[in-house]
Amino acid sequence: MASDFELVLDRELASIAPLDNAWLEKARRRLAEQTRPPGSLGRLEEIAARLAAIRESLEPSCREKRLYIFASDHGVEAEGVSAYPREVTAAMVTNFLAGGATVNAFARALGVDVKIVDVGVDADLGEHPRLVSAKIRRGSANIRYGPAMTIEEAERAVGVGLACAREAHADGIDLLASGEMGIANTAVASAVAAALTGLAVKSVTGRGTGLSEEGLLRKIQVIEDALRVNQGTAGRPMETLARVGGFEIGALAGLCLGAARWRIPLVVDGWIATASAILAVRMQPAAAEYLFFGHRSSEAGHGEILRWFGFDPILDLGMRLGEGTGACLAMPILEAACAMLKEVATFEEARVPNRRLSS
Amino acid sequence: MASDFELVLDRELASIAPLDNAWLEKARRRLAEQTRPPGSLGRLEEIAARLAAIRESLEPSCREKRLYIFASDHGVEAEGVSAYPREVTAAMVTNFLAGGATVNAFARALGVDVKIVDVGVDADLGEHPRLVSAKIRRGSANIRYGPAMTIEEAERAVGVGLACAREAHADGIDLLASGEMGIANTAVASAVAAALTGLAVKSVTGRGTGLSEEGLLRKIQVIEDALRVNQGTAGRPMETLARVGGFEIGALAGLCLGAARWRIPLVVDGWIATASAILAVRMQPAAAEYLFFGHRSSEAGHGEILRWFGFDPILDLGMRLGEGTGACLAMPILEAACAMLKEVATFEEARVPNRRLSS
Repeated sequence: MASDFELVLDRELASIAPLDNAWLEKARRRLAEQTRPPGSLGRLEEIAARLAAIRESLEPSCREKRLYIFASDHGVEAEGVSAYPREVTAAMVTNFLAGGATVNAFARALGVDVKIVDVGVDADLGEHPRLVSAKIRRGSANIRYGPAMTIEEAERAVGVGLACAREAHADGIDLLASGEMGIANTAVASAVAAALTGLAVKSVTGRGTGLSEEGLLRKIQVIEDALRVNQGTAGRPMETLARVGGFEIGALAGLCLGAARWRIPLVVDGWIATASAILAVRMQPAAAEYLFFGHRSSEAGHGEILRWFGFDPILDLGMRLGEGTGACLAMPILEAACAMLKEVATFEEARVPNRRLSS
Repeated sequence: MASDFELVLDRELASIAPLDNAWLEKARRRLAEQTRPPGSLGRLEEIAARLAAIRESLEPSCREKRLYIFASDHGVEAEGVSAYPREVTAAMVTNFLAGGATVNAFARALGVDVKIVDVGVDADLGEHPRLVSAKIRRGSANIRYGPAMTIEEAERAVGVGLACAREAHADGIDLLASGEMGIANTAVASAVAAALTGLAVKSVTGRGTGLSEEGLLRKIQVIEDALRVNQGTAGRPMETLARVGGFEIGALAGLCLGAARWRIPLVVDGWIATASAILAVRMQPAAAEYLFFGHRSSEAGHGEILRWFGFDPILDLGMRLGEGTGACLAMPILEAACAMLKEVATFEEARVPNRRLSS
């Protein structure tokens, strides 16, 4: 029998519609009439057309920007798959709340509201206006020896992301970004990516926060062990999440689904957020049309996964921090794309002579 | 005998100093202490360090942003080297002043002040608060048959750019961008680039606003003719400007020099602004360290010239509009880099545990 959550999720997934081609066409026509040579804004034009189709408006806005950072711990941290110890997850959440992390500096500079969501940090974080407490458990189980969590916990994690999107909609947010914090979560993201695509673990596993060559080999071994122990989830993304995922991975996937459900464009951050987005897209392929990929991370595997899914990232600056930093940096570009679509005069309005007859 | 302008220019050029390595090192040390894995911000870290060295401060700001758009007409337009007719230059300047162009939409969205500088538009533009009237002549001469302008006019054009940088400094601007408008100026930029580098004309010539294959072949022929008629300027960039340049090209080069002189970081736009920046760098190599290249234009030749000079653009979005649009889009990334350097807590300040001893 379907659980209550399954019924809710099915309803949410069913209400995610593919973009309406008529809106894409309307936006492209408007862009083609504007005072500049046809096609001269390259990818900005595709971005603008997609934003119009997401919002079903020729005057979409991306002014009200919010980043959700989902934080959690991971049992597999015990296997030495990260250059940093487990306590860093909680310490960095405290740093986010104090406004002292890189993503805080970016968000202040670019006018992005930040909410931090605890879905599984192994510490008592207390209360804070920017902290959403949605802890499922103090850290997932070690995937090297069994599933990360139960199916019910995986569903709850996805539900947290869905609820955040609903809140953003209620708050009038018109552009979302996703970010994360969780020591060892690059390894978990690799496990999820490999399970979903069948790609070799070594081709989707990188050095994360800065592993040595020896550390990288150990990490690959641990992920391969985890996939062997937890095999047999193909075609059931919720099961993949439960077996080899993490709480923040589930919440990130839920945010993708919720953003699509509420027609809010979402800028996905780097490696971990992208692996989570793939989970979401496997649950509902139409969700992909609501997603923008902020940047190509220098974490090994990110470029490969983006290509595999045909996603073209906006920036490529050799970054590999996570937190939502890559997503934040791409947000002003979406704002500019909206402004172009809304505000640029047509040749006719501005009385600018159009092309020569033959050139 | 040296002209008055030569004396002024020599003094300005002499006051452009290479960046101080001590400031770069100080900034890198500060970045390395901040709460994130070493090197995880990739190119943002280099950008931040360079901004610190330009401003000689560990708290540089890029909040006060201004774009100068230099506009001019070109005699070579008569050769049919553009898909748009000459009148479009003045019409687009009017569009800029009315706020209806793509660059206006971007500038409003991103908080960039815009000034339009008429250095040679073939029309009476009247007065407007955003318009700087510095017209040298109503369009340069046709470079297919002789020099574009006299040496004195070339010097005046460079002087306009220098004066704009001085004004920006007086106005407290801490981040500059360059843009341009001038029908046929992609052809002129190709002539300048080929003259300065010796690269084949066809490898640095593209379709500009949208030439046909036939139009492109005609454009290449015209530029080759212009270089033959105007040859022999090697090693004398002011002469190259006078022979095959344009008034806005000179002003753009002057803005690069002035920005370096006043230690204001400058984001260079696309093809035409880059060719002009090369002129500036040939006049004073140290100026290069004050320049950021906003994006890789899809105009053929831009990627090649950037590689030739070892400049690594910030964005790569398939744009080829000019106006300063690519430079504007890159400005928030520099703002974010400043904010990072200034605001991010160190491991010690935030009491975040640093790396494991072995990983």
